[in-house]
Amino acid sequence: MTLCILSITILSCRNRCCLCSAINEDNARFCLLAGLILLYLLCGAAVFSALERPSELRARLLWDQQLANFTLSHRVSLGALHALLRQYEEANGAGIRVDALRPRWDFSGAFYFVGTVVSTIGFGMNTPATIPGKIFLIFYGLIGCAATILFFNLFLERIITMLAYIMRWCHERRMRRSGLGAVSGAEEPRSEEDSLEGWKPSVYYVMLILGVASVLIACSASSLYCSMEDWSYMDSLYFCFVAFSTIGFGDLVSSQREHYEAQEAYRLGNCLFILMGVCCIYSLFNVISIIIKQTLNWILARLACPGRRCPCSCPKRGLLPTGRHRYTDASVETVCDSETDAGAGVDGVAGGRRLSGEMISVNDFTASNKVSLALLQKQLCETAQQGPRQSHVPRHNGFSGGVGAFAIMNNRLQETSVDR
Amino acid sequence: MTLCILSITILSCRNRCCLCSAINEDNARFCLLAGLILLYLLCGAAVFSALERPSELRARLLWDQQLANFTLSHRVSLGALHALLRQYEEANGAGIRVDALRPRWDFSGAFYFVGTVVSTIGFGMNTPATIPGKIFLIFYGLIGCAATILFFNLFLERIITMLAYIMRWCHERRMRRSGLGAVSGAEEPRSEEDSLEGWKPSVYYVMLILGVASVLIACSASSLYCSMEDWSYMDSLYFCFVAFSTIGFGDLVSSQREHYEAQEAYRLGNCLFILMGVCCIYSLFNVISIIIKQTLNWILARLACPGRRCPCSCPKRGLLPTGRHRYTDASVETVCDSETDAGAGVDGVAGGRRLSGEMISVNDFTASNKVSLALLQKQLCETAQQGPRQSHVPRHNGFSGGVGAFAIMNNRLQETSVDR
Repeated sequence: MTLCILSITILSCRNRCCLCSAINEDNARFCLLAGLILLYLLCGAAVFSALERPSELRARLLWDQQLANFTLSHRVSLGALHALLRQYEEANGAGIRVDALRPRWDFSGAFYFVGTVVSTIGFGMNTPATIPGKIFLIFYGLIGCAATILFFNLFLERIITMLAYIMRWCHERRMRRSGLGAVSGAEEPRSEEDSLEGWKPSVYYVMLILGVASVLIACSASSLYCSMEDWSYMDSLYFCFVAFSTIGFGDLVSSQREHYEAQEAYRLGNCLFILMGVCCIYSLFNVISIIIKQTLNWILARLACPGRRCPCSCPKRGLLPTGRHRYTDASVETVCDSETDAGAGVDGVAGGRRLSGEMISVNDFTASNKVSLALLQKQLCETAQQGPRQSHVPRHNGFSGGVGAFAIMNNRLQETSVDR
Repeated sequence: MTLCILSITILSCRNRCCLCSAINEDNARFCLLAGLILLYLLCGAAVFSALERPSELRARLLWDQQLANFTLSHRVSLGALHALLRQYEEANGAGIRVDALRPRWDFSGAFYFVGTVVSTIGFGMNTPATIPGKIFLIFYGLIGCAATILFFNLFLERIITMLAYIMRWCHERRMRRSGLGAVSGAEEPRSEEDSLEGWKPSVYYVMLILGVASVLIACSASSLYCSMEDWSYMDSLYFCFVAFSTIGFGDLVSSQREHYEAQEAYRLGNCLFILMGVCCIYSLFNVISIIIKQTLNWILARLACPGRRCPCSCPKRGLLPTGRHRYTDASVETVCDSETDAGAGVDGVAGGRRLSGEMISVNDFTASNKVSLALLQKQLCETAQQGPRQSHVPRHNGFSGGVGAFAIMNNRLQETSVDR
């Protein structure tokens, strides 16, 4: 229903298509995503309800039967037993089980606990029971979680840089091989550099690589848990996903028994696997979310201009070749990807150039205004500052908002633009 | 110890301070953060261990006593009781408690469950028990968590834009009031615009506002939980933090009883509070993480060049006024904050200008190279692309890496630069 309302809202804006700059498409995208997530939740709830409801009913029947058997065979009143079970629930909260578990709040247990706090996994195998512990947790978690978010982001940066570097190297090698019969002498490196100028790794390849890495880590970790915890391989994989994605239900928690073979090694391995897994899955989530955003852009473009071109505000879109560009309606052609393009750009061939989330068409600007170098600099700098006020260049297509946590904040806040 | 090793590594690089561009300070920052987080974890583990260990021991004693009392008074063997308690633990896993709880896997229960999955809260009050449920969870969570990360990031974007807009408006009003006796006539709006040109809200103010908003939401939600769940106010606040930060231990979970007064309204209110809280705290974490990154930069700058200036690579730093700039060593002066600065910039007064994570000094570049407009464009575009290869302008100070999930990926991957 929400989606319907959304679609209607967006479709009602269609007639104002040529007033694209007036429609705030960032808001539309946000609402569309919210609607889609709600729909996704409803579908998920239906599926899980269908899958798990019978198992819940069976478990309840079984437990009632077990309880009845016990009261009958041991002649204990149900009331007394319930009182005991309530006490046991309370003891459970303090981390006590029938079968001896590792101590919860010795140093290594507390270390495991704080690890689950700052990573926001939160298994809940131990939780602070005292008031000072709870108060401390709030302040401790506030700094810890923020620091870990930064850590994950820096990890993401490192891994993307590394992947881009490796993939570029592979691309270069492939090109060198295929270009054996190409022009020789001084010209060759120049032309190679030109064609690599605008080269960037595909987000799909990066997703694939991160996905494969995540699966490898999860499979290796599962083998370990299989042998150490006596879980089935499926349970181990499920645990890995729940832990690595920082969901952390706590129904299965690794390294909780009192004794293991090679205990210290296992604890270390457990920590390392969880660390690697969380970093990998976090990166994977972020890459997938880019693809989701592209899909949203595509949907919005379809909803806004279905089957026709927007004549006034999107003059170049219809002229783009559709081969390389997955979503022509949403594409903004870059003009400076190679030297040839840049040269053509000066001649006034239009196109939007994205500069850190804001859109600026350098060539449009220079061609139409005959600006001085100083003015151009100013224009570029202003655009890069991403202030809340509107840029002089209108936002043509609505796909110009920055994505992501820091992209948004970078250069929008005072301190971030000066010193990041 | 890790920190010591880190410090030594960084200090040993000091002698190569003038080879700043050769040192990969992005890596140094990453390692420094990892070391600091490890230290933070160790300290946290020590504190929690000290706070919670006595309570755990008391709880264990109490439970042993209760169990002994029960076996004595009801003449039940300890073995039989242990078997029952194991069965109860299993039943617990399926969401069964002594006191009736809401059904776990009816539609509303399943909806609550999927909500905790995609938000990565993962209370664990219900968890899939069947193999198909577990397999479905993995694929469902993969897309769901990615979509929610995108949602949080778009929310962050909206909230930062809104805050920046409001704060700019307030700033403008304040300036207009204080400028009552200023120049009149046609000059006034011009000079006003000039001084607002480079104005951006302070990251500290934004943090303060988000912090206050989070506290307000948490306090309102706590009042609700207090009255509905019979938790103490402190417990409610603790639950709010654990839920909003997506840690989700599951020791306290709201809306789990079978019946409440005004049940539907409470369930809706619970969902809305958790949604608002998670969005707010996520934004707050991200803003705090920027401040942590600034602190890291400051530490790195101190470690790299303690008490002295780096003569060759940082020619302007010593000349900067220290008033506005918190960390002079780490500051990169912007040249285009106001028209005056931009004008001065053309005359060749140096300074680095940050463009989406990479550093480019437009004025240095033009002054020293007498470049054509086309070349300047190309240079700017290349820098904005943030490719893995080095920019022509050397990375002076190491504070030029992009921060954050998407800042990193934007323009580094093929599809993200074309269509974000």
